[in-house]
Amino acid sequence: LTDTSSIPDVFSSSCLCHVLQESLLSSASGYSNYRGILNWCVVMLVLSNARLFLENLLKYGILVDPVQVVSLFLKDPYSWPAPCLVIGIYLNLLPLWHANCIIVVVVHLPKSIYLNIYTCLKYTTKCFSTKSGGVFALGVYTILFMKLYSYKDVNMWCREIRHTKARTLTRSHSCPSVAQSNGSAVHSHVSYPGNLTHRDIYYFVFAPTLCYELNFPRSPRIRKSFLLRRLFEMVRSKIISGKQSYVILFQWIVPTIQNSMKPFQDMDFSRMMERMLKLAVPNHLIWLIFFYWFFHSSMNFVAELMQFGDREFYRDWWNSETVTYFWSNWNIPVHKWCLRHFYKPIMRRGVNKWVAQTAVFLVSAFFHEYLVSVPLKMFRLWAFMGMMSQIPLAWFVGRFLRGNHGNAAVWISLIIGQPVAVLMYVHDYYVIHYMSQS
Amino acid sequence: LTDTSSIPDVFSSSCLCHVLQESLLSSASGYSNYRGILNWCVVMLVLSNARLFLENLLKYGILVDPVQVVSLFLKDPYSWPAPCLVIGIYLNLLPLWHANCIIVVVVHLPKSIYLNIYTCLKYTTKCFSTKSGGVFALGVYTILFMKLYSYKDVNMWCREIRHTKARTLTRSHSCPSVAQSNGSAVHSHVSYPGNLTHRDIYYFVFAPTLCYELNFPRSPRIRKSFLLRRLFEMVRSKIISGKQSYVILFQWIVPTIQNSMKPFQDMDFSRMMERMLKLAVPNHLIWLIFFYWFFHSSMNFVAELMQFGDREFYRDWWNSETVTYFWSNWNIPVHKWCLRHFYKPIMRRGVNKWVAQTAVFLVSAFFHEYLVSVPLKMFRLWAFMGMMSQIPLAWFVGRFLRGNHGNAAVWISLIIGQPVAVLMYVHDYYVIHYMSQS
Repeated sequence: LTDTSSIPDVFSSSCLCHVLQESLLSSASGYSNYRGILNWCVVMLVLSNARLFLENLLKYGILVDPVQVVSLFLKDPYSWPAPCLVIGIYLNLLPLWHANCIIVVVVHLPKSIYLNIYTCLKYTTKCFSTKSGGVFALGVYTILFMKLYSYKDVNMWCREIRHTKARTLTRSHSCPSVAQSNGSAVHSHVSYPGNLTHRDIYYFVFAPTLCYELNFPRSPRIRKSFLLRRLFEMVRSKIISGKQSYVILFQWIVPTIQNSMKPFQDMDFSRMMERMLKLAVPNHLIWLIFFYWFFHSSMNFVAELMQFGDREFYRDWWNSETVTYFWSNWNIPVHKWCLRHFYKPIMRRGVNKWVAQTAVFLVSAFFHEYLVSVPLKMFRLWAFMGMMSQIPLAWFVGRFLRGNHGNAAVWISLIIGQPVAVLMYVHDYYVIHYMSQS
Repeated sequence: LTDTSSIPDVFSSSCLCHVLQESLLSSASGYSNYRGILNWCVVMLVLSNARLFLENLLKYGILVDPVQVVSLFLKDPYSWPAPCLVIGIYLNLLPLWHANCIIVVVVHLPKSIYLNIYTCLKYTTKCFSTKSGGVFALGVYTILFMKLYSYKDVNMWCREIRHTKARTLTRSHSCPSVAQSNGSAVHSHVSYPGNLTHRDIYYFVFAPTLCYELNFPRSPRIRKSFLLRRLFEMVRSKIISGKQSYVILFQWIVPTIQNSMKPFQDMDFSRMMERMLKLAVPNHLIWLIFFYWFFHSSMNFVAELMQFGDREFYRDWWNSETVTYFWSNWNIPVHKWCLRHFYKPIMRRGVNKWVAQTAVFLVSAFFHEYLVSVPLKMFRLWAFMGMMSQIPLAWFVGRFLRGNHGNAAVWISLIIGQPVAVLMYVHDYYVIHYMSQS
């Protein structure tokens, strides 16, 4: 009887097998772990590209000769003005720094650098044959300008603190920025003016950040496997995005532009819409690959190499439910710089919060326009207007949309907004260079 | 002086702006909230389809006449054997149930139903003109078989408990399955044999579960907005997947098969590979849309309509790092049924754990083969072998891959595995029906 009496327990526990609960994909469930979806995206991208690669190989065989590519680079270095300009500015840093005395350099170095940039730019716009080289060199110069501006600001603050301390020594006011330890026991702690060395400024110039700090947090060691993985990712995404850009340019953009000339002239809106959507998806994919390549692989690679500890180059912008959340989280180095060296200083002067935010967008819009207009030699304001249109969009999304709907609106603005601006520039460029000839 | 002494504090707090931390996308960060990526997938899908729709509309105008479609359905109902068979089995349930006495029905009903299915099947294979109708009808019959098997089992367990209770009444053994409350105060609690009613069996037959329970958890009310959203999703995904299936069939599969005839005959592996990868991506997308349509939209819609409380139709299979995790989480109703009515009963008889798991895979493989072979009238074992190959794959992935690598391997097996089996069937079908003619 003991044997049979245990059976009902087994059965009765089997009888109940349903619980009151929501499905995971319902927003009511509050579930948000979709790490697998990210892997899915990577797998899909690799597989689609493997197929394209295989198809291409089967059709044409191996065409690229790596020896030829390298020899092309080495033969005539002066035909590559962009790398020369970049190397030039980095080498010029040291003489510039030495030419001024230590205190003066802190205040005036950015100005002289900026003058240097300005003269270089004039040269740049004249001699540049390739547009992408122009964008690259201008980008490097802009980054350097922001870095040196930050360098000046922080050293000025430190000097201010030192002077105040000297004046109010009797009140024993201690400076927390110098007194605090930052967790890494290996690197010795530096305080102003001990930071004004060649080594220090060159470390900062190459470090993946725009904000200067006297004692950066340092990672304890260089992880070789991490370095290799990032290097592998860098090469892979560069190949994918490079091929994609090439494909998009010749397979999509040129026919799209040629086909969209007529609808644009006739103002045929449904056909313009169709053309734009056709451009949107591959353009967006390239942007996503670029993001991963630059902000994750490359910056982490450089940081690992330099033992730079702060790896927060982006936050979770993919979940952003408002436009402002997206803009303050997708590019943390620039966001941090704007906050520290532009937003907070003008706020401290008593400027209204909304005015200050608009000013940040204005400056950002100016730099976007600057990076596109100069190399293309076209002053069209499309990039500027694209950035400025984020303000009413941010108001609209924040006011009317919540949760997943807000997130979807941010994605749509990203996917649609970029190709509109790109199409405008390419359209105008095409009209100037090709329509006038025929 | 009080004014200037406060400035250094502001500056010194600005001086520190870096913290030792990892990037979010690094696996070391442990971050996993990618809800936004899911929204991105939906937005991309909708946008790509909107463009295709717009392009199609611009090219051909509106071609579909809804009146014509409905009239086609109503004109000759006997040319639609699949819906007739499905409605027939649901109507036959009641006479079958009545023909047997209450205790007998519990034991013998599944057998009689299965005989009924068997005779229907013979009829099915003869009269079916459409393959998809055959798959649909067979699917419904299989689901019904599993439901009634569960109905029999649970009622048998309840009878067992009741008998044991009667025998051991002096020991006051209480049955928790009948005594427990399940949280919903509205619906009255039912105990065996009070559950043997028409209403109860019909509720179970239409409820989105395969496991019978005397008192299902019930949701308190029908949320109309939830119902409408699921209905909208159902219609939308149905249109997208329908159009995609159509496009894939005529734009991809037919040319792919025609082009892959020669590589398959010549055993040209690199070209076979290229063909298969070409098929893999759209096939996988259709499967994903089908998953969302069936397991999220449709099942939630039915559950909301019937106030069925347990909405766990799937778990987070997208994060699965082993093959077994995927198979036990992507289809919870079938997984639950297998566990409750097959795995646990044979485990209780002292069967080894690994043997029992293999047996579950065998049965599952049999049903997969059965659902494909009968409507196509081709007994080829590709689906069976596809399922059985999961066992060595599961061993391999579990043994050698961890974390994101395991997850990527599961995704690759999903993306590649399905189209291989599909291509095999389509290839053989094509060889039988078209090669013999020419």
